[in-house]
Amino acid sequence: MNIKQLHNKIITLRHNNFFEFFVVGVIVFSALVIGFKTYEIPSVGFLMLFLDWFITIFFLFEIGIRFIAESPKKDFFKNGWNLFDTTIVIISLIPIEDSQMAIIGRLIRIFRVLRMVSLIPELRFLLNSLMKALPQLSYVMLLMFIIFYIYGAIGSTIFGAINPVLWGDVGISMLTLFRVMTFEDWTDVMYETMVIYPWSWIYYLSFIFFTAFAFLNMVIGVVVNTLSEEQSKMITDKQDANKTNLEHIMTKLNKIEKDIEKTSK
Amino acid sequence: MNIKQLHNKIITLRHNNFFEFFVVGVIVFSALVIGFKTYEIPSVGFLMLFLDWFITIFFLFEIGIRFIAESPKKDFFKNGWNLFDTTIVIISLIPIEDSQMAIIGRLIRIFRVLRMVSLIPELRFLLNSLMKALPQLSYVMLLMFIIFYIYGAIGSTIFGAINPVLWGDVGISMLTLFRVMTFEDWTDVMYETMVIYPWSWIYYLSFIFFTAFAFLNMVIGVVVNTLSEEQSKMITDKQDANKTNLEHIMTKLNKIEKDIEKTSK
Amino acid sequence: MNIKQLHNKIITLRHNNFFEFFVVGVIVFSALVIGFKTYEIPSVGFLMLFLDWFITIFFLFEIGIRFIAESPKKDFFKNGWNLFDTTIVIISLIPIEDSQMAIIGRLIRIFRVLRMVSLIPELRFLLNSLMKALPQLSYVMLLMFIIFYIYGAIGSTIFGAINPVLWGDVGISMLTLFRVMTFEDWTDVMYETMVIYPWSWIYYLSFIFFTAFAFLNMVIGVVVNTLSEEQSKMITDKQDANKTNLEHIMTKLNKIEKDIEKTSK
Amino acid sequence: MNIKQLHNKIITLRHNNFFEFFVVGVIVFSALVIGFKTYEIPSVGFLMLFLDWFITIFFLFEIGIRFIAESPKKDFFKNGWNLFDTTIVIISLIPIEDSQMAIIGRLIRIFRVLRMVSLIPELRFLLNSLMKALPQLSYVMLLMFIIFYIYGAIGSTIFGAINPVLWGDVGISMLTLFRVMTFEDWTDVMYETMVIYPWSWIYYLSFIFFTAFAFLNMVIGVVVNTLSEEQSKMITDKQDANKTNLEHIMTKLNKIEKDIEKTSK
Repeated sequence: MNIKQLHNKIITLRHNNFFEFFVVGVIVFSALVIGFKTYEIPSVGFLMLFLDWFITIFFLFEIGIRFIAESPKKDFFKNGWNLFDTTIVIISLIPIEDSQMAIIGRLIRIFRVLRMVSLIPELRFLLNSLMKALPQLSYVMLLMFIIFYIYGAIGSTIFGAINPVLWGDVGISMLTLFRVMTFEDWTDVMYETMVIYPWSWIYYLSFIFFTAFAFLNMVIGVVVNTLSEEQSKMITDKQDANKTNLEHIMTKLNKIEKDIEKTSK
Repeated sequence: MNIKQLHNKIITLRHNNFFEFFVVGVIVFSALVIGFKTYEIPSVGFLMLFLDWFITIFFLFEIGIRFIAESPKKDFFKNGWNLFDTTIVIISLIPIEDSQMAIIGRLIRIFRVLRMVSLIPELRFLLNSLMKALPQLSYVMLLMFIIFYIYGAIGSTIFGAINPVLWGDVGISMLTLFRVMTFEDWTDVMYETMVIYPWSWIYYLSFIFFTAFAFLNMVIGVVVNTLSEEQSKMITDKQDANKTNLEHIMTKLNKIEKDIEKTSK
Repeated sequence: MNIKQLHNKIITLRHNNFFEFFVVGVIVFSALVIGFKTYEIPSVGFLMLFLDWFITIFFLFEIGIRFIAESPKKDFFKNGWNLFDTTIVIISLIPIEDSQMAIIGRLIRIFRVLRMVSLIPELRFLLNSLMKALPQLSYVMLLMFIIFYIYGAIGSTIFGAINPVLWGDVGISMLTLFRVMTFEDWTDVMYETMVIYPWSWIYYLSFIFFTAFAFLNMVIGVVVNTLSEEQSKMITDKQDANKTNLEHIMTKLNKIEKDIEKTSK
Repeated sequence: MNIKQLHNKIITLRHNNFFEFFVVGVIVFSALVIGFKTYEIPSVGFLMLFLDWFITIFFLFEIGIRFIAESPKKDFFKNGWNLFDTTIVIISLIPIEDSQMAIIGRLIRIFRVLRMVSLIPELRFLLNSLMKALPQLSYVMLLMFIIFYIYGAIGSTIFGAINPVLWGDVGISMLTLFRVMTFEDWTDVMYETMVIYPWSWIYYLSFIFFTAFAFLNMVIGVVVNTLSEEQSKMITDKQDANKTNLEHIMTKLNKIEKDIEKTSK
């Protein structure tokens, strides 16, 4: 068996459905291993180590096959998902001995679960569409950040002396405001400052009003945009169909006109 | 009265409106009995037992009628709602003496209230439409599960030592994360880990951002899909009407063309 | 001045814009009086009593004018808002001496604020449209009630012994479930039952899933319905315009056909 | 260099892209200074004072340029954003010595961050569209205020004696009701009043129902309005295109008719 034959075999394997399912299976299995490790059952340490090495080597093998099967090799690195997969697999190859670093090693292995997203087309599509919606939201997020920053600065200036744990500086204040936005024990925060500044409920209510309103606007914006795109496509399709029909009628009329002219001569 | 006549009578009874209302009435009554039993009023034990037997026998009788009235007997078992009703009724027939099992017996009787859904067409329609929306959501749910699993594994790896009650293993961590997603005392969870890891607010905020965003996407997806279907139906109807009109005009034009040709000869 | 002239004057007054504004003003003033009374400032008791009588008599006078100005007297009672106004005003006429009943008297006066809704057309329109959406939601609400009832019955059967304050009977259980649905300290409720039944998180999560899903469906249903109605109206209008145009073309073609036939003869 | 030349230079500077970016940069920097001040690092007081004066003078200089570059000077004050900018800058010029007033001075400086909104066109557009949605919501808000007021008055009348901290007067009651609407520890409020009035859960549940329903209606109203406007624009465009086509056909038919008439003569 020469190299050419091996190459063809690899290409066949790469597009084999069973191989795809097996890869997804190994990823699910690696996720289970990661989950299992959190239960800290003592006597299976060696088995875990073995499974971990098996998964790492299998992933290396699988990415190798995907790389070899790619016809112009450059295209492999143009695909963001391939880069993501390769990075995850290579990083998990680094041997970590230090117990302090062991946690980082485990965290990297957790991200291998994300490879599921890169392999299942429906999930990849979903994530891409989520990503596409992000820039559309960026200005609303900037506006929300400005609202948070201004309220955070006001909060830490006025309430900083009352409770430094909640209003110590602008960063802590913004975290407290995020808590208020999620309605998480926000009245406790408010009642505390209302003891000193009885009118401070205006601060909280106006903040809730502004952020809720901005959030509502954001959601509506996304819905309207998504809907409009779908609809304009539908209506354009329809218009084209109508236009074709009307053009046929026009052609026919032109022909009739000529016939009449011929007759009249 | 021979069997044929009895069979016809049963068919008549089965499609009788009053009988339908009476069955719904008995189900409502059985629901009231179930509710009443939770108040644990002591002296009515015998009455409860009697009512319970009356309801069980009536349901058996009613399903018998439905079965006999079905013309090809096989069709009865093809309907999922019939299977559901029969299972519920048969299970509640099993006599339960053991006090431990008595609770299970009571739980089964509670599910008889669900027969209401199988009998009222509007509720059946509603539940069917809910079921139809489920597969459409399945990939978003898979994505959310992956987000939960990754954050759960990270959480139990990093925070496991701080509070095992909340972050003991990946399962408990996912339950804690669900709590965070519902904003239920989530700051208590966060403040606890921020004492050891001051930067852990990034973990919580990014999790809230991802899940809220995925959830938002899910809702929008369902709204857009439902709307698009309704609209494409409407627009298709309209298009058909237009198309028919345009076709009539074309036919007329063809006729005129022939007339002219005849004239010109 | 005879009765006829007086009657005409009353009709003029009833449709006078300034009079309408004055009535709204008195209602706003009566709302302020009601709000002021809750501050329990001691020395103004007599003033309050006087204002209360002034408002009551003015409302009586205003309804009298509206009744007299109505041309067929029967029509006055056909309008639901008139009946509402009259009932509110007449009930507040009943003198209440008993201190126990004084609270009821005050509560009735509070409902006079609702007259604002009956007088401002935009609010009346809003409330009517809210009312119109209600029947559309009734089956979803029935489904939610069934979900609540089944979970309530299960909850009080299983958890009744753990905490009778939360799960004592089916009614209390349903209130606790409503609390869980609003995510209000729901983990406290869950953790308590998880001590005895470790798997009870399934009960809570499935309940949250079902109710959130049903609620989501409800919201989408209302949005889709409202949108569809608006759209079908728009599309129908458009279709009519197109249809008219196409009919004109058809008429013209028929005329041309006849002309040709005449020519060919 | 005479005044004319200077004037031209200022106009050139005002529309210079780099200048615009620099102004945004100074605003971002002033925001950072404001945020930094909340950390209360002792030894940089002088630096802060210097930076504050630099920012104030730069803003004065920038607004001066904008004013000079405006061709009819009156137009400068017609733009609401210019007035906003000028007010913010002029107020921050007032020297504040008193330590009590120092906080007010700091608060005014915080509002300088809002100048970001006035300078970035996308944010200005966003805020304008938010403002445009406000009047559309005003009647729903009035309705919600009436609901709050009535429930607040009822609450302070009935529950005022139980807990004056939550139900003391109509104002406090409305704040408590807002808390109930955000589901913030609302069951604590309810359980407290249920001890005395066991039926008071009806008060809370009906309030939650009414406000949630009104809020839902509000959101749907905004979505429907925004969508309808976009759609009616799209459909109108389409209709115009169709109309033009149909008019062309009609013109052609008229021409054919004349031809036939000529022929028949």
